[in-house]
Amino acid sequence: MEAVDERFLPVPGNVLPRFAGIPTFMRLPHRAAAELDDVDIALIGVPFDSATSNRPGARHGPRQLRDLSTMIRLVNQATRVAPFHLARCADLGDVLINPVSLDDSRRRIVAYYRDIAAAGVVPLTAGGDHFISWPILEALAADGPLGMIHVDAHSDLYPPYFGGFDSHGTPFRRAVEQGLLDPRRIVQIGLRGSSIDMSDVDFADEHGIRQIAVEEVFDRGVDDVMDEARRLVGKEPIYVSFDIDAIDPSQAPGTGTPEVGGLWVQQAQRLIRRLTGLEVVGADLVEVSPPWDAGGNTAWVGANLMFELLCVLADGVHRRRP
Amino acid sequence: MEAVDERFLPVPGNVLPRFAGIPTFMRLPHRAAAELDDVDIALIGVPFDSATSNRPGARHGPRQLRDLSTMIRLVNQATRVAPFHLARCADLGDVLINPVSLDDSRRRIVAYYRDIAAAGVVPLTAGGDHFISWPILEALAADGPLGMIHVDAHSDLYPPYFGGFDSHGTPFRRAVEQGLLDPRRIVQIGLRGSSIDMSDVDFADEHGIRQIAVEEVFDRGVDDVMDEARRLVGKEPIYVSFDIDAIDPSQAPGTGTPEVGGLWVQQAQRLIRRLTGLEVVGADLVEVSPPWDAGGNTAWVGANLMFELLCVLADGVHRRRP
Amino acid sequence: MEAVDERFLPVPGNVLPRFAGIPTFMRLPHRAAAELDDVDIALIGVPFDSATSNRPGARHGPRQLRDLSTMIRLVNQATRVAPFHLARCADLGDVLINPVSLDDSRRRIVAYYRDIAAAGVVPLTAGGDHFISWPILEALAADGPLGMIHVDAHSDLYPPYFGGFDSHGTPFRRAVEQGLLDPRRIVQIGLRGSSIDMSDVDFADEHGIRQIAVEEVFDRGVDDVMDEARRLVGKEPIYVSFDIDAIDPSQAPGTGTPEVGGLWVQQAQRLIRRLTGLEVVGADLVEVSPPWDAGGNTAWVGANLMFELLCVLADGVHRRRP
Amino acid sequence: MEAVDERFLPVPGNVLPRFAGIPTFMRLPHRAAAELDDVDIALIGVPFDSATSNRPGARHGPRQLRDLSTMIRLVNQATRVAPFHLARCADLGDVLINPVSLDDSRRRIVAYYRDIAAAGVVPLTAGGDHFISWPILEALAADGPLGMIHVDAHSDLYPPYFGGFDSHGTPFRRAVEQGLLDPRRIVQIGLRGSSIDMSDVDFADEHGIRQIAVEEVFDRGVDDVMDEARRLVGKEPIYVSFDIDAIDPSQAPGTGTPEVGGLWVQQAQRLIRRLTGLEVVGADLVEVSPPWDAGGNTAWVGANLMFELLCVLADGVHRRRP
Amino acid sequence: MEAVDERFLPVPGNVLPRFAGIPTFMRLPHRAAAELDDVDIALIGVPFDSATSNRPGARHGPRQLRDLSTMIRLVNQATRVAPFHLARCADLGDVLINPVSLDDSRRRIVAYYRDIAAAGVVPLTAGGDHFISWPILEALAADGPLGMIHVDAHSDLYPPYFGGFDSHGTPFRRAVEQGLLDPRRIVQIGLRGSSIDMSDVDFADEHGIRQIAVEEVFDRGVDDVMDEARRLVGKEPIYVSFDIDAIDPSQAPGTGTPEVGGLWVQQAQRLIRRLTGLEVVGADLVEVSPPWDAGGNTAWVGANLMFELLCVLADGVHRRRP
Amino acid sequence: MEAVDERFLPVPGNVLPRFAGIPTFMRLPHRAAAELDDVDIALIGVPFDSATSNRPGARHGPRQLRDLSTMIRLVNQATRVAPFHLARCADLGDVLINPVSLDDSRRRIVAYYRDIAAAGVVPLTAGGDHFISWPILEALAADGPLGMIHVDAHSDLYPPYFGGFDSHGTPFRRAVEQGLLDPRRIVQIGLRGSSIDMSDVDFADEHGIRQIAVEEVFDRGVDDVMDEARRLVGKEPIYVSFDIDAIDPSQAPGTGTPEVGGLWVQQAQRLIRRLTGLEVVGADLVEVSPPWDAGGNTAWVGANLMFELLCVLADGVHRRRP
Repeated sequence: MEAVDERFLPVPGNVLPRFAGIPTFMRLPHRAAAELDDVDIALIGVPFDSATSNRPGARHGPRQLRDLSTMIRLVNQATRVAPFHLARCADLGDVLINPVSLDDSRRRIVAYYRDIAAAGVVPLTAGGDHFISWPILEALAADGPLGMIHVDAHSDLYPPYFGGFDSHGTPFRRAVEQGLLDPRRIVQIGLRGSSIDMSDVDFADEHGIRQIAVEEVFDRGVDDVMDEARRLVGKEPIYVSFDIDAIDPSQAPGTGTPEVGGLWVQQAQRLIRRLTGLEVVGADLVEVSPPWDAGGNTAWVGANLMFELLCVLADGVHRRRP
Repeated sequence: MEAVDERFLPVPGNVLPRFAGIPTFMRLPHRAAAELDDVDIALIGVPFDSATSNRPGARHGPRQLRDLSTMIRLVNQATRVAPFHLARCADLGDVLINPVSLDDSRRRIVAYYRDIAAAGVVPLTAGGDHFISWPILEALAADGPLGMIHVDAHSDLYPPYFGGFDSHGTPFRRAVEQGLLDPRRIVQIGLRGSSIDMSDVDFADEHGIRQIAVEEVFDRGVDDVMDEARRLVGKEPIYVSFDIDAIDPSQAPGTGTPEVGGLWVQQAQRLIRRLTGLEVVGADLVEVSPPWDAGGNTAWVGANLMFELLCVLADGVHRRRP
Repeated sequence: MEAVDERFLPVPGNVLPRFAGIPTFMRLPHRAAAELDDVDIALIGVPFDSATSNRPGARHGPRQLRDLSTMIRLVNQATRVAPFHLARCADLGDVLINPVSLDDSRRRIVAYYRDIAAAGVVPLTAGGDHFISWPILEALAADGPLGMIHVDAHSDLYPPYFGGFDSHGTPFRRAVEQGLLDPRRIVQIGLRGSSIDMSDVDFADEHGIRQIAVEEVFDRGVDDVMDEARRLVGKEPIYVSFDIDAIDPSQAPGTGTPEVGGLWVQQAQRLIRRLTGLEVVGADLVEVSPPWDAGGNTAWVGANLMFELLCVLADGVHRRRP
Repeated sequence: MEAVDERFLPVPGNVLPRFAGIPTFMRLPHRAAAELDDVDIALIGVPFDSATSNRPGARHGPRQLRDLSTMIRLVNQATRVAPFHLARCADLGDVLINPVSLDDSRRRIVAYYRDIAAAGVVPLTAGGDHFISWPILEALAADGPLGMIHVDAHSDLYPPYFGGFDSHGTPFRRAVEQGLLDPRRIVQIGLRGSSIDMSDVDFADEHGIRQIAVEEVFDRGVDDVMDEARRLVGKEPIYVSFDIDAIDPSQAPGTGTPEVGGLWVQQAQRLIRRLTGLEVVGADLVEVSPPWDAGGNTAWVGANLMFELLCVLADGVHRRRP
Repeated sequence: MEAVDERFLPVPGNVLPRFAGIPTFMRLPHRAAAELDDVDIALIGVPFDSATSNRPGARHGPRQLRDLSTMIRLVNQATRVAPFHLARCADLGDVLINPVSLDDSRRRIVAYYRDIAAAGVVPLTAGGDHFISWPILEALAADGPLGMIHVDAHSDLYPPYFGGFDSHGTPFRRAVEQGLLDPRRIVQIGLRGSSIDMSDVDFADEHGIRQIAVEEVFDRGVDDVMDEARRLVGKEPIYVSFDIDAIDPSQAPGTGTPEVGGLWVQQAQRLIRRLTGLEVVGADLVEVSPPWDAGGNTAWVGANLMFELLCVLADGVHRRRP
Repeated sequence: MEAVDERFLPVPGNVLPRFAGIPTFMRLPHRAAAELDDVDIALIGVPFDSATSNRPGARHGPRQLRDLSTMIRLVNQATRVAPFHLARCADLGDVLINPVSLDDSRRRIVAYYRDIAAAGVVPLTAGGDHFISWPILEALAADGPLGMIHVDAHSDLYPPYFGGFDSHGTPFRRAVEQGLLDPRRIVQIGLRGSSIDMSDVDFADEHGIRQIAVEEVFDRGVDDVMDEARRLVGKEPIYVSFDIDAIDPSQAPGTGTPEVGGLWVQQAQRLIRRLTGLEVVGADLVEVSPPWDAGGNTAWVGANLMFELLCVLADGVHRRRP
């Protein structure tokens, strides 16, 4: 392994105990968005939840994710990946969103991520509700539509809310409509629950989006499902969007639209590890809503899934490095 | 599909958001018990828990189940059943029980369900503790003993409590003794935990009741178990009683007598879906006890299992319709 | 006392226990907004919180207030007022707001309350965040500016948020600017906490609004403060707006912007009772945010304060009756 | 001070830390009810709550009170009373009640306390709901009616429940009817909340019971109120019954029928200390309901009030000792 | 079956309800450590957590485990083992540890367990943090190194903390270094999570300790893993140490160093049952930390796993009895 | 007012909402301990709780205090003090303590605060348990004994724990013994609860320490008590130590040794404001223990009291500035 830049290694727990210190994501150094020249991967919070149709609170997600993430250590024991040794990671803090305006917030997020993309930095984002994936995609898909692996209880392909409004249920319908995503390279995993009228399924069918219900994952197993998903998205750039409500509410109760009978964390870890080698240009973990989980296990699950995503991203950065 | 009676369709969440409105079961219309002539299936609360031997609180179950059930939508995505389009459903409110008297409450419940049965309405009941199944069976078994599929951590075939009293542990022993249930058509699924003296097992063995421990479900799988259960109960009328403590306490902590190592919600959903086609004359979901689950996931699980039961009941109503 | 209309008397707890039944405000009959001809006072929910600058969740307020309010009985023991015998009260359900649009929601609320006002019905509203008082005032102040007694930790006279947006911190500044309120007849009670820049105080000073800090209430006592407040608002019509965050967070933790060192509930009860005899044309109780109070005491306090407000309103209806 | 019996001194916290050990009331020795010859004061649990009309759970009170009471030390700093040095105290465990029968439980409690009274032991009881005071009084009033100081939000003088049943709202009406209490020597302190129909007030007025609303306590102060109470009960034997719902729900949320605007713990401590010198033959602390207070502060308040009551009882034992 | 000593049978729940009574482990008789001559198995609390590197609170474990364990009954339904009929069990209370000194506490624990071992009593211990296993092993391994089956998310083979201190992460490294454990007869099951530097894995590899990650358990199944474990530890004496954090945090959130993606309770039950027949000389269940699980399910899981361990120990006592 | 250094002004909530961003104390800039030349007042966390005799958890205090403190704004409305405009404040992060060694942690804290004192910076510390005040005093009292105003439920003058150990109950006894504090200039306010043996009172009496019980504060009022306290400590340098358990547990439940019947926050605010003008050389706020308050109000109270202390300190810095 090449020389490691010590400035980007989290302080270990036997120097500063894990409950101590000002919490950044995984105890990484805090960098201003303007100082990105030596950063490979940026961990970013987007504390916006004003597009939530049911239970709000995901605006508090980034802070609790930071808090819990300080319990993450350096090496992924299951895969032996040590992401902070493979790529220079930093916590950029939170995007300055406007909680009383969807439009203003959307503009702010697009502008922010355009700068990230321009700097050649790979973003790993903590939401916030799922609305935020739309402006992120708008910034990242500048060079053409992306593929996507989307893990979620809901398709988020729903028609406009209240007759004509965007919400956290519409981001990927809008992204497909705008050409930010290539629908034939979208795979949605973990779908379940009751539905209003199946209009999202109709949209998926019309555009060739592959939807995999949670029952199918339980029947086929994660490995088989991911083999198919890898085939479908291919080697071209993809985005990975993970909605914490994909996980069963017993493991992740703190979310805005819980659905019973979900994926297990154990399956989600395996699923993310199977993304290794794909061309992932960005990822997010959204819908962690602290007010709905006093115990904080949701954020602890979320922080671990972010770590798994980070291992995939860092491995990609490392492989692509000349 | 025949014409749908719009009066019985729940108001959708993009007209009135799911957190808004006075909560009835699944946002159904509220009907008085006296106005049942156009109702097929009645959702009824029986907020009685005074037969509880351990932790009380299930009297608060119907209200929290109503509250959470407003997040249920119209179509079961896994089965594509749309129950509110198949049958006219209504929320009848709660039976007027007397919290300080088992005897008085039992009389009130029997009388109430006799009227339901007389009106030809199929009841889907939310408890309350498991004692309430006994008077419900007394009303529904007027024409002869019923079969039963009973999902529970406990057999509820225990001998009288404190030497001579009924409790929420005795309903099915009493129902068998009174000829309300045909023991050879009873299947109990999910049994586990420690036992005082195995006298309930002796009772089951003597009467030919089939008991399936949770370990057997894990070993054989839900489908195989349900094939056997369907064979045993046959095509004659059955009752379905689902005690939420059948589910693992991580998914359903809010109950009076939790037992670790339970069924998963994912298995319970599959189990209930496999009831389709049986002659189900009524069902209940009992022992949701809100004070023991501040987060409310137990009631959310309970509301979803009620929805699965409702899909089975509505399908039956629809099939039997001339 | 004249004959009482039995249809408007809540069902007593020794007929249907207080934990039972579908929860309406104080167990009142549910009426559609279109059927108001025999209603004197309407209890209305406005489950809107998308103008919240800090912790969201007040959209869940009306439902939890309804739930807890079922523990309210018929007579105010302290004052011997029996409001349901003095005036015909009904629960109108919730206004159909749009959670992802402030503008759309504002229009919907104004229209709704114009109908209420046109019907000659006195509204007692449960929020929702404090933004909702602005459109309510817009509807109620059709005949000229109202006075207001406003109990709150915050003045809600703040300048536009994020440079040009309305929020739950701006309603009364906007109402004064629009001539909906007569600033010289506004009394604000309970103000405290840290401030960004005192610009709201400057606005109050410029317009002649009387602000009474919580420390002044503790020093002078409620009776003395209320004597002054009654003098200032006089005999002309006033609106009463009660933000639950006026109360100390130990008694009312479930709110979006808590401030320590607040009024006691005991003082608030006394304060509201001293409104009797004023010309109150409407009242609200806002900012109860259930996700921030798992125990529910905030909503129980809120329901009791709504009952105290209702006693004042019912007494007014009764006095004005020919 | 005479020689102290070391066997009755709680183990100190610097020998066995307060979080350690099997929890008895205040770390006292556990005695069987049959071994009372050297005991002066018995601490007894009555874990019965099946007479509760609203929220159940007080059956879990004695255990949580024992748990929290292990934080109590030996000397009352405010009064310098050291109760364990003044009287020999022991924890007798719990009365064997029957949770599914009021009648059977009532018989069991009467018999148990007859033995206590026969042994000349002063009982300090932890409930359970307020129903239990009735059978306790039946045992203790064998030699004639007692006076009573009763601190509570509710008078518990209500008429029969559901037309003809006893409940936790009827104990003192029944005790007066049976001649167990002398109504002219009853003082009720802390009454408040809404009322169904004021029939309990009529009963009090007819029998000469003195009722002091919480507002009167706030206006006059504890000392003045207690001067009057001491005059009214005089020097004859009295019972003291303290319902934890007398305390404001912010300090004692864990109870079955909370009422906002209550007494402060600080006032309750002062109130109990002012009982010193009265002829108190027994006392109880009831309605602590752990499921409604996850944090446990209610039980911590309850344990402290039991300690204050114990100081009064021990002082009485010590004074009466020849 | 031989005659059972009734003094050692827990009181059944239909005599004293399970929520009643002073809580000992599984309602067993409380014995002083000095009275062990007729005891076969001792249940002991060690409420020590001052070696915790992250979240403290396990000092409160024994008390909550006792509280919840009163819901355990007499017969293991899955295995039909009735441990209290096979061996005389008693609750010895808690070891007198010193919360502000690791060294003093270690000395106290060693001395205490030497007496237990000398009395020929088999100890089943409830922690406390994992540090306590080290002094227990020091006492039990007097006759030579023991084997160990160790179920845990962490290996606890970590190097000294803060450069030279013992902690709850070092007990088994120290025990191996001191010759208390035979590393080739150690099997560690359930390991997972992120790691600082894999130095514990190096230690395990050097000493021949078998480590089985949680992923391996999921892939191979419990039975296959346990077949291997039984082969490795053989027929010589072993100790069993079960850290509750082996279990997934959804089922056991109340612990000091949670790791997502854990074993299921259902697997843990099967795992412990497969220990039957091994020469188990002692066992512990550690790291239950009540402040991190308001609901108490962690302790309920812990109490059930203690019961499973007790069944194994009682079966061993019974088999070895002459 | 002189020119304000903008770098030390917290970012306002209408630029970055209060729930957003990496949480430092009151949103102040984070400075390394080595960069103190332009800092007047340092906010410092000492996350140490291993000297706790009862409930641990205060090690998590600094992080939760930081989190909640981001809701603090710029101006104290009651006093009109704007501390960040009067003095340059920064968050130094946490001292690197060792959770498994009191001695090592004590050495680390002394060394850290010696550097702070040498730099002429005034420290405002967030604990941690009360043990930490001892090493802080050791560093600050280099030039002679300090006076102290100490607000607490406990005197913390207790004799050594377990016969010879320091704990969080011994810091001020040790500080007096070592000559770090001048006992005649110590005033302790808010003392209450039960006591083991009054030996701390004897120590106070012998050394001339003034102890003011909470009952005395309620009887005399805060202003009168503080007039006396100001007289006693005089104009020489003092330290201010505020234990959150001085506050009533209803307002501050999250602490290790709660005592019922405490000071109100409203009194504490008034008390601290009355410190203005005294020569305060440092202050701390200790014993906030997050695991014991899921809701977080304790930390919100603590953050507000830190803000009140900061106003006093900043005013002192400003007055002393040449």
